[in-house]
Amino acid sequence: MSDGLNMSRRIRRTPYTDSVEKLGVRGFSVVNHMLLPKAFQPTVEEDYWHLRRHVQIWDVSCQRQVEISGIDASKLVQLMTPRDISKCDIGQCMYVPIIDSDAGLINDPVLLKLAENHFWLSIADSDVLLYAKGLAIGKGFDVSVKEPEVFPLAVQGPKAEKLLVQIFGSDVSKIGFFRFGWINFCGTKQLIARSGYSRQGGFEIYLKGAHLGKKLWNTIWEAGKNSNILPGCPNLIERIEGGLFSYGNEMTIANNPLEIGLEKYCTLDGSIDFIGREKLQEIAKSGVKQKIKGIIFDGDPCPTCSVPWPVTVGEKQVGAITSAIWSPRFKSNIGLSMINHKFWEKGQPVNVHVPNEAVYNGKISDTPFKD
Amino acid sequence: MSDGLNMSRRIRRTPYTDSVEKLGVRGFSVVNHMLLPKAFQPTVEEDYWHLRRHVQIWDVSCQRQVEISGIDASKLVQLMTPRDISKCDIGQCMYVPIIDSDAGLINDPVLLKLAENHFWLSIADSDVLLYAKGLAIGKGFDVSVKEPEVFPLAVQGPKAEKLLVQIFGSDVSKIGFFRFGWINFCGTKQLIARSGYSRQGGFEIYLKGAHLGKKLWNTIWEAGKNSNILPGCPNLIERIEGGLFSYGNEMTIANNPLEIGLEKYCTLDGSIDFIGREKLQEIAKSGVKQKIKGIIFDGDPCPTCSVPWPVTVGEKQVGAITSAIWSPRFKSNIGLSMINHKFWEKGQPVNVHVPNEAVYNGKISDTPFKD
Repeated sequence: MSDGLNMSRRIRRTPYTDSVEKLGVRGFSVVNHMLLPKAFQPTVEEDYWHLRRHVQIWDVSCQRQVEISGIDASKLVQLMTPRDISKCDIGQCMYVPIIDSDAGLINDPVLLKLAENHFWLSIADSDVLLYAKGLAIGKGFDVSVKEPEVFPLAVQGPKAEKLLVQIFGSDVSKIGFFRFGWINFCGTKQLIARSGYSRQGGFEIYLKGAHLGKKLWNTIWEAGKNSNILPGCPNLIERIEGGLFSYGNEMTIANNPLEIGLEKYCTLDGSIDFIGREKLQEIAKSGVKQKIKGIIFDGDPCPTCSVPWPVTVGEKQVGAITSAIWSPRFKSNIGLSMINHKFWEKGQPVNVHVPNEAVYNGKISDTPFKD
Repeated sequence: MSDGLNMSRRIRRTPYTDSVEKLGVRGFSVVNHMLLPKAFQPTVEEDYWHLRRHVQIWDVSCQRQVEISGIDASKLVQLMTPRDISKCDIGQCMYVPIIDSDAGLINDPVLLKLAENHFWLSIADSDVLLYAKGLAIGKGFDVSVKEPEVFPLAVQGPKAEKLLVQIFGSDVSKIGFFRFGWINFCGTKQLIARSGYSRQGGFEIYLKGAHLGKKLWNTIWEAGKNSNILPGCPNLIERIEGGLFSYGNEMTIANNPLEIGLEKYCTLDGSIDFIGREKLQEIAKSGVKQKIKGIIFDGDPCPTCSVPWPVTVGEKQVGAITSAIWSPRFKSNIGLSMINHKFWEKGQPVNVHVPNEAVYNGKISDTPFKD
């Protein structure tokens, strides 16, 4: 009983919440002041196998969009991220870490370039809207910064493409990975991207217009019955195995992007200007002191990790696990952890301290975890 | 089962979470990416009567502090709010609406002035940290903006003062309303303010140092046993009756402070400069088109309001209720609502549409609700 979630307007419902409730959702999380369904199947493992084999429909409306448009839009977006956004085409999605002047991570959204000087940042759990507003006001930029009425719905899993082609036509197939196109739905044009928070393939429909939510959900649901469709949500086993990191879990404002292995998204040669550049160049020069790594560890299926679990070598704490779960494929517990540079080599033996439970033997691994 | 809350590191535990779990907390909300206990007693009504008669201890760590310090600190804080902060003494708490350039509310925190150019903003549910960072960077201000390790613990109710005097000494009595002083605890100096999110009186201890959390909780809990202390949390009946508004519920970024009745906290004569001033002056000149009001309405005890409930007069929607509950004192349902200016007079008959339930007769009331 201790894990009930008290509802209020502040914890915003989505256009799909009625539908997920009707389908028996068993729990929610809260992301960006909005409900994110977190459990449908009796176990995370059943959900995991289904996601890997069939197709699921996910209410990910909590991936709020921060819309930045106007004359100075590109300038503002570039200031916020170390990634060179001049390389982003219209119709492209780009993963862009956002940092502050200390190079601390503020968010790790996906940027969608809708037009020259017209962007959406599809955000993880922090109010990027307020950071962008503060910067725009402070700099006196000529931009509009707002949260539009857009409610992403993900269709994930190996059968996702076939299902969406069946509903929306064969053009869906032509959309490349991390690219987006447009579909017609009820007389409206809706954005669809080949993206999503799983490694099983699929799409995200960025629905504009809450009133169309029930209809969109039902259209996909009905058409999906032949494909064994089920309601779903980001699956913790699949996400950890696949090395998909989560803002607030694996990374916070206390971390810089190099610690999270995001070097390839950081242009540090001075060719672009962004907030935190000097600090990030310094860090790159001296080398990071900790980095995100996988850990495989013993024991029965572990409980939920809701506080960092200390990781030790001998008497020394060398890091902490921030997300962990039993992997049915690896037949072992697996976790994501921030680990001291002296102990981050693959195969390094460590001890994992699960609070109020026990200490387990483990070893450092790369991510994604590999067979 | 549909209201379970899935736990993760991202939904941060507090130094008091172990204690509230031990005492049988029955539910949480999430505020500022942190757990807020939401239910202990079997009913909200039992909790309500207890709060009005005795003393309660509340984990309100989710009231995160945004610490702004440095040469330009006053300048930055003043830019963020229409309230004249030059009138704030060291040792004073001040309720300061924060707005953007469109005069939309970003938060409604309590400002604590620790020293010249050293402030805490004790925030409601939005990342003021990011707004302040954006502004500071954009303006090139010489300030530090961060979230310190401070975890407020509230002691509320008519017996709060006596209890805290017993534990921390008689100086606690000398602290005026919305002023703060300092207490000694385990060799540390801790800030204590006469404040809190109820109309029953009490204090908030802004504990610095998570490791002292359990000890502080237990010290108050043990000493409080003679005063019939219970664990508690902001009580929905008490808050609505008392006209305490909640950011995200009664107000969002779509509202300006004049709609929320915060005129007295807005200096619009041009003597201070802040973001959104021109827009707010315009709104003041033309008059607001809607305002927050109470509504008393018929029916059996109403369900939880998790989406705005339409309020109509004849065929016309004239507003919406955003929080509502059965009041045992008024023996009626009461709600807080945003109401069109043509229908906001006290006594105006309205209809309240509770989704999937019924339409009830109601009438407009002032807040706080009065006997």
